[in-house]
Amino acid sequence: MLDVCLLGTGGTVPLPNRWLTSCLLRCDGRSVLIDCGEGTQIALHRQSFSCRQIDTILLTHYHADHTAGLPGFLLTMAKSERTEPVTIIGPKGLEEILRGVMLIARYVPFEIRYMEIQSREQTFQIGNMRITAFAVKHSVPTYGYCIEVDRRPKFDPQKAQAAGIPLKLWSRLQKGETVTDENGNTYTPDMVLGKERKGIKMVYATDTRPVEYIAEHARGADLLIGEGMYGDPAKMENALKNRHMTMQECAAIAAKAGVRELWFTHYSPSMPDPEIYREEIQAVFANAVISHDGQTGTLKFQEE
Amino acid sequence: MLDVCLLGTGGTVPLPNRWLTSCLLRCDGRSVLIDCGEGTQIALHRQSFSCRQIDTILLTHYHADHTAGLPGFLLTMAKSERTEPVTIIGPKGLEEILRGVMLIARYVPFEIRYMEIQSREQTFQIGNMRITAFAVKHSVPTYGYCIEVDRRPKFDPQKAQAAGIPLKLWSRLQKGETVTDENGNTYTPDMVLGKERKGIKMVYATDTRPVEYIAEHARGADLLIGEGMYGDPAKMENALKNRHMTMQECAAIAAKAGVRELWFTHYSPSMPDPEIYREEIQAVFANAVISHDGQTGTLKFQEE
Repeated sequence: MLDVCLLGTGGTVPLPNRWLTSCLLRCDGRSVLIDCGEGTQIALHRQSFSCRQIDTILLTHYHADHTAGLPGFLLTMAKSERTEPVTIIGPKGLEEILRGVMLIARYVPFEIRYMEIQSREQTFQIGNMRITAFAVKHSVPTYGYCIEVDRRPKFDPQKAQAAGIPLKLWSRLQKGETVTDENGNTYTPDMVLGKERKGIKMVYATDTRPVEYIAEHARGADLLIGEGMYGDPAKMENALKNRHMTMQECAAIAAKAGVRELWFTHYSPSMPDPEIYREEIQAVFANAVISHDGQTGTLKFQEE
Repeated sequence: MLDVCLLGTGGTVPLPNRWLTSCLLRCDGRSVLIDCGEGTQIALHRQSFSCRQIDTILLTHYHADHTAGLPGFLLTMAKSERTEPVTIIGPKGLEEILRGVMLIARYVPFEIRYMEIQSREQTFQIGNMRITAFAVKHSVPTYGYCIEVDRRPKFDPQKAQAAGIPLKLWSRLQKGETVTDENGNTYTPDMVLGKERKGIKMVYATDTRPVEYIAEHARGADLLIGEGMYGDPAKMENALKNRHMTMQECAAIAAKAGVRELWFTHYSPSMPDPEIYREEIQAVFANAVISHDGQTGTLKFQEE
């Protein structure tokens, strides 16, 4: 199960009624924040979450609207008496830029573990989440993130019995262990497990032109959270110049990738009501949701 | 005339209903912002002001709750197509710290003029405001600010006539010019001006123990904006440890300095309703205002 909450859906400038783009993911006791703009800690508070519980922060890129909230966020974590380390993952320059930004927040009593993305694609395992950072195309180095939660195959007692596996080893094999008994026989998990099962997958990509990699990573995903910077197709020139996407371009990615649902985020402050584009967008991709701050959902393993 | 607006009154952590401590001053076409925490640009927007008009930013110190909003604030100014320079005044380390913080906001198209305070007391002239920074006592180098607007003495035609000053020179002398005529006679403004007149004075001091300098600078001021970090006198230990003030200590400064009015700011997030201390505080200083975000006032030259 993966809980997703869009803390903010605004791009560029925080507005009185729209927080900057940021997303909270929760899975099996781990909490991941994607981006942390000015006010993200307030947005989190408003959704009744606490900064204290966040253990990992993914940064898409270092523009201020995605990062300026970090010093305050980490200080508020500190005030909540957090002592456990916090991991921050981001593009090249991570430590240099964060050390600059943190000149105004020097006394953070827990360890900050910087994990700089080293290549165009890199995978991190955070609890049960397999998180793949993949390069996208913005005016500065920027990454999208693909979050996958694997589902273990079902235990198959008939298969275990047929293979003659001693009953006392079943539960260890079922948990994924490989076991060698006192006679030197080795048993592997696949001897007791059924066929592979589809896990959960979501992709987060904003502040980018609609590059091919996004659809590739999002193929068959349960959810794509994508960029809704511009709704008016007449803004294409701005989208090209500033390396952003139109909602139409993003909806086309969702359609191409065959995702179950698309949520928009990172609306331009020049677009007070993205709802007005709903019909036009849903003509491109029917399951497009014109999200607002606080948009929440739970991605579950699908019934078989 | 000096317009004053408390954009936020919160200390340490921004709350959903209380912005971080920041103050806007406007005088004769100049706009000065004191401190810029996370969300200050939203607070300004909420009060129907624009970032664009701010020409000077005074920083009391470099803790994140007073400075983390700067990258976003300056970027929003940039998006408003400001081209005029912005002056930032602050304690030692100004340029180094700001350059670190601005690593996430590299493309600001106007000049930022850094004016580092060089001594325990230093005066800056910003338009008609004479701004004196004075060192206070916090856990890091911190300054209070005294803002004075001088009032020119009244023009005294009888005095001018008695001194035999040619009529055609009156207006230039009245404006403060010294004039020498073709016969070599020199005339000075004091020859046409009446007695000195009281100007406007306000003092801003937060994040400090109640040091003597605050009362000295605030003597006879129209307004003291002072720290209300703790209302409960039992928090004195915290005030001493973290180098903050209690509301009682601040009210005692106001009484000692004989100011006309005291506004509180920088309330601890542990104090959701500072109003509950009103009676107790007003017993120390009757004209104490338990300010809230958006507290606004206009300081005028007094009637004679």
